[in-house]
Amino acid sequence: MIQTDILIIGAGPTGLFTVFEAGLLKLKCHLIDALPQPGGQCSEIYPKKPIYDIPAFPEILAGQLIDNLMEQIGPFNPGFTLGERAETLDRQDDGSFIVTTNKGTRHHARVVVIAGGLGSFEPRKPPIDSITDFEEKGVSYIIKDPETYRNKKVVIAGGGDSALDWAIYLADVASEVSLVHRRKEFRGALDSVERASELAKQGKIKLYTEAEVKKLYGDEHLEAVVIRHNDTDKGETYVETNAFIPLFGLSPKLGPIGDWGLEIEKNAIKVNNAKDYQTNIPGVFAIGDVNTYEGKLKLILSGFHEAAVMCQYAYQIINPGKRYVMKYTTVGGVEGFDGSRKEAKKEVVQPIA
Amino acid sequence: MIQTDILIIGAGPTGLFTVFEAGLLKLKCHLIDALPQPGGQCSEIYPKKPIYDIPAFPEILAGQLIDNLMEQIGPFNPGFTLGERAETLDRQDDGSFIVTTNKGTRHHARVVVIAGGLGSFEPRKPPIDSITDFEEKGVSYIIKDPETYRNKKVVIAGGGDSALDWAIYLADVASEVSLVHRRKEFRGALDSVERASELAKQGKIKLYTEAEVKKLYGDEHLEAVVIRHNDTDKGETYVETNAFIPLFGLSPKLGPIGDWGLEIEKNAIKVNNAKDYQTNIPGVFAIGDVNTYEGKLKLILSGFHEAAVMCQYAYQIINPGKRYVMKYTTVGGVEGFDGSRKEAKKEVVQPIA
Repeated sequence: MIQTDILIIGAGPTGLFTVFEAGLLKLKCHLIDALPQPGGQCSEIYPKKPIYDIPAFPEILAGQLIDNLMEQIGPFNPGFTLGERAETLDRQDDGSFIVTTNKGTRHHARVVVIAGGLGSFEPRKPPIDSITDFEEKGVSYIIKDPETYRNKKVVIAGGGDSALDWAIYLADVASEVSLVHRRKEFRGALDSVERASELAKQGKIKLYTEAEVKKLYGDEHLEAVVIRHNDTDKGETYVETNAFIPLFGLSPKLGPIGDWGLEIEKNAIKVNNAKDYQTNIPGVFAIGDVNTYEGKLKLILSGFHEAAVMCQYAYQIINPGKRYVMKYTTVGGVEGFDGSRKEAKKEVVQPIA
Repeated sequence: MIQTDILIIGAGPTGLFTVFEAGLLKLKCHLIDALPQPGGQCSEIYPKKPIYDIPAFPEILAGQLIDNLMEQIGPFNPGFTLGERAETLDRQDDGSFIVTTNKGTRHHARVVVIAGGLGSFEPRKPPIDSITDFEEKGVSYIIKDPETYRNKKVVIAGGGDSALDWAIYLADVASEVSLVHRRKEFRGALDSVERASELAKQGKIKLYTEAEVKKLYGDEHLEAVVIRHNDTDKGETYVETNAFIPLFGLSPKLGPIGDWGLEIEKNAIKVNNAKDYQTNIPGVFAIGDVNTYEGKLKLILSGFHEAAVMCQYAYQIINPGKRYVMKYTTVGGVEGFDGSRKEAKKEVVQPIA
């Protein structure tokens, strides 16, 4: 069982910054996220998009924001359980919690912070009979490790950046890449569309537009897909493949957290914003886009502030009776759990000779 | 009379970021600050000190933070009344306010935001009879424009970074620089102490340590100071001078704002943190270190968040009945009042040839 002071559900920007604020209070954090890497939406959905409203960054790419946060929290080396979704919350007699993921990983902490953003991002699945039967048997909605597809035949479906980028990437890895899209037009960065176009001309990507994957075949494992063309004259194409990867985007769902007994309002968790961002379950906090209160702004900035406030109260729960005196980092520096120390150059006191 | 949507009292980081959040809502801002430049404490007291707890900056110098904020708010070109202290607040019949400074500059706005930090920083004055009589007649506590002292005789008092840095700077500007300090040891950055030491050896700075300025002489204008040495054998030294600049630091005072009828608690302004950071005077908000509420953290980050929330409510006051739908800068971009426009590169929709 993984043991920590503060268990953070959601490794987006708010969850990551919580590690820093907790670290200043000498509290150790562990994060769970359903996505395979930290950063939440910023890493998964729009890493190359600029954000303009992070204070003191006239412009920063979402991916860079995450890189900076990872560097900032480095000294407090947090633990990560990635690619797993927090499934159950069990309150113990002593007031602590055990959180178990969909893969059975158990985490024990005195304080749980839900920094779940818009929820866990569930892939949009195409309406194909038997698609769930082939999950983990050739059908995937997220590419965790492209090496899985080396020298294999792959069918990708979708018309956005993910579908384009992975088709381009896998063209050099897989033995055969087919790209299926129900329209003629792709919606993506100009250079991605151009690059995919070039690879299609070279025969490195087999292109099926105005077409959809409609059937899956295979015994133990996926062996082929059937592509149906919109133009009924063209009928159907049978394509042998080892993998089918529909990349139709992710849709946010509050998911299992919705069943934890938390007070929910408009798909978000109600918290006491006048004080500590605690939920109706003592010891469970909710910060960032996942919470709601009067005047709530779904800004990354607001999640950062809520993290700072919330950590002060987590400290009181974890260290009852102890009083923490806040020191400014400018004055006191930052001491990492890894022995690192950053601080301002000290002034010297010396006579002028 | 200066006319604006939101009048911000205090041009520290919180006040500056308010301009950005207001700008996104197409509201125009004007700032008043008693200091001669924007940035508050960050610029005036510790521009060269690193801050470690600004989200996504593992380390940033306070001065750089201000430079970044000034760049970020540039497109919303705010007005500034600098080197003047907000003195009176007069509520008009229509609910708007007129704020007048100690120099008589008048500002009219529907919403007033106090982002006054720890208050206006008042210089610590040495206990010398008649010192106030010589203010603006040779005695200054802040150096606004060093050129004022070109080819003049200057006496600086103090033993910290300000006294050292200005003595070093003015050594090349003034015709004579004397530095008076009541101890032998100076408290400052090592290189400043060493540089001052060198200039003293070269005779470019006249050094009087273990000594204090005790008397001021002059008719219309300051003409001389009397320095008394701790070592009574040495007695007193009479030094002719055009200027006396005691640099004993700044001490924060809430100042005239304390008399505006605001609810004050522990030298800070009470606000409704459960909603909009409004004070007991409708239309007057208080954000950043100057406000107080249960669990208040005096962090720059918290001021930023409070600014974002507060601007939403200011919008409602200024545009009654109008509904503002928040757009993410990542999606909608940022449109400056100066005609500038920043936005993410748009995706293209095009067929793969």
